[in-house]
Amino acid sequence: MRANRQVVLVARPRGLPRPEDFRLTQAPMPHPAEGEVLMRHDWLGLAPAARLRMDEAGSYSAPMALGDVVYGQAIGTVLQSRHPGFAPGDMAMAMRGGWQCFSALPGGDLNKIDPKLAPPPAWLGPLGTSGLAAYIGLLAHGRPRAGETVAVSAAAGAVGSVVGQIARILGCRVVGIAGGEDKCRAAVDEFGFDACVDHRDPALAQALARACPDGIDVAFENAGGPSRDAVWPLMARGGRIVVCGLIAEYNAPETAGPGWYRLLTQRLTIRGYITSDHLDLRPDFERDMARWWSEGRIRMREDVSHGLATAPAAFIGMLQGRNRGKVLVSLAPDHAQAA
Amino acid sequence: MRANRQVVLVARPRGLPRPEDFRLTQAPMPHPAEGEVLMRHDWLGLAPAARLRMDEAGSYSAPMALGDVVYGQAIGTVLQSRHPGFAPGDMAMAMRGGWQCFSALPGGDLNKIDPKLAPPPAWLGPLGTSGLAAYIGLLAHGRPRAGETVAVSAAAGAVGSVVGQIARILGCRVVGIAGGEDKCRAAVDEFGFDACVDHRDPALAQALARACPDGIDVAFENAGGPSRDAVWPLMARGGRIVVCGLIAEYNAPETAGPGWYRLLTQRLTIRGYITSDHLDLRPDFERDMARWWSEGRIRMREDVSHGLATAPAAFIGMLQGRNRGKVLVSLAPDHAQAA
Repeated sequence: MRANRQVVLVARPRGLPRPEDFRLTQAPMPHPAEGEVLMRHDWLGLAPAARLRMDEAGSYSAPMALGDVVYGQAIGTVLQSRHPGFAPGDMAMAMRGGWQCFSALPGGDLNKIDPKLAPPPAWLGPLGTSGLAAYIGLLAHGRPRAGETVAVSAAAGAVGSVVGQIARILGCRVVGIAGGEDKCRAAVDEFGFDACVDHRDPALAQALARACPDGIDVAFENAGGPSRDAVWPLMARGGRIVVCGLIAEYNAPETAGPGWYRLLTQRLTIRGYITSDHLDLRPDFERDMARWWSEGRIRMREDVSHGLATAPAAFIGMLQGRNRGKVLVSLAPDHAQAA
Repeated sequence: MRANRQVVLVARPRGLPRPEDFRLTQAPMPHPAEGEVLMRHDWLGLAPAARLRMDEAGSYSAPMALGDVVYGQAIGTVLQSRHPGFAPGDMAMAMRGGWQCFSALPGGDLNKIDPKLAPPPAWLGPLGTSGLAAYIGLLAHGRPRAGETVAVSAAAGAVGSVVGQIARILGCRVVGIAGGEDKCRAAVDEFGFDACVDHRDPALAQALARACPDGIDVAFENAGGPSRDAVWPLMARGGRIVVCGLIAEYNAPETAGPGWYRLLTQRLTIRGYITSDHLDLRPDFERDMARWWSEGRIRMREDVSHGLATAPAAFIGMLQGRNRGKVLVSLAPDHAQAA
């Protein structure tokens, strides 16, 4: 019988996770119960928010237990189905697939994907959870109007790049904040941002002010830390700050924030959200994003590592900002080895 | 010809205003132009937000110029009217009456009041701008539901006491935060809060946690500083923080705030607002508050000082939290002296 390779959490990280917090292990091949689907994972999609689930408490979701398979999205191929909605050969995305080579999950937890519309990795990016997070945060909470200025941190990342592209489609001026020249260039050249400033630049505040001569109406915060502090004094009256992620704070949750004086004088709204609070917008997202994708108006940048064993290092690198686009782990090497 | 006594701003305060930042002076009696109304000011209503207008910039309104009459609300008696809506003997509230004994203002800038429904000071308190600020902030932004917990800072103050009373009327559990035993007692005994904790108590965090066993759904922030920091870790999932005022920060706008980690994990919304953004709610406010007042469900506490010359000290004392309820200046002594 074939085994299921898995990466489990063996210690709760303090600050930045270390490779020793994870362990590669084997479990028996799962068997789908009635209503479940057995799926071979072809790709894992890593997202910084998983870091929150590694803490004991305080996250918006139940924390992982020690020994649990690490939480994460997966795209794969249905091998066996005991659910009427799926047949062998279908491709699907599992929100809670986890860092493993196979899963058996209730059919209701899977979303079928259409590899003819876009290749599988795109269903972990713009057409998947990254895109949905971008769409919901920007439209439901940022509510940008044409002509407004939208600032986006982690601008070349999986969520930020989609936020910027949607905001451009909506007719906004879009200014990115990203770490390093390469990412800034990607934001402008690949994703069509009007400008992008480097959060490592000691003159970040002045650079951002120059790029946003009318102030910032919507700030989409993926990072926290320097980008948050640079955006704050530029917020225009009635501005909205949408907090999607705070990579810079996940490993140091006690970091102080800005005082609240400007919040009052500029009548700002700050809104922390998670995608699953607004799944009512999912049908709109699926319709709009499929159209934009097929029109070539949404691009994606992938940062692929190969083999399940590389997942911890890829995850740690992402939290350090070392990735270039959506972080994906291809499990093709694992399946080739097992075959 | 009678003169108009005034208090003007002669220096921009740094931190807490000093008496020398103000000067008592005289101007000629104003003459109403066509469309204007000459009013004798009987009462001034002081509000902490005027402190913001004393700074050079950064406020939500145009700053006062040096030499300007100090900004503030006034209630008075119409002496002469060149506006069809007012007649001599009418009583009215002037949002921008200022710290002076008389004003000549466009009729459109005045609100007629009904002294038969409530005595004039109430029209500077629950039935006036303090009440409107409370009503709009709580209903438009806090959106409390019956059974939810509402925490209110500066609970015995002009706005906070009204917020608490409205929240009780709406069926919420209402917990106050106030400075000192006397104010805490007033919140509970006079204004009907379920509990009130002292922000000077070194064990404030624990006391507030005990008073809010299910966390805080709506925090109405009038003060900033210790109350903000105590409320923050108790915010329940989906909680709303409404920022009406930040007395504790007006004199030190660079104070740091809490980090944003909980904002994300608890999906909080923080909203800074000013009343004039939502004047569409004014008719609802006038209807509801008149009914609640006449039913005896809204009480008011007044802190009256006597004579225009006392206004600067009363204002400074209010910013230090030394007042007991709505801070009013009676101008009866000035008018008696001039007669």
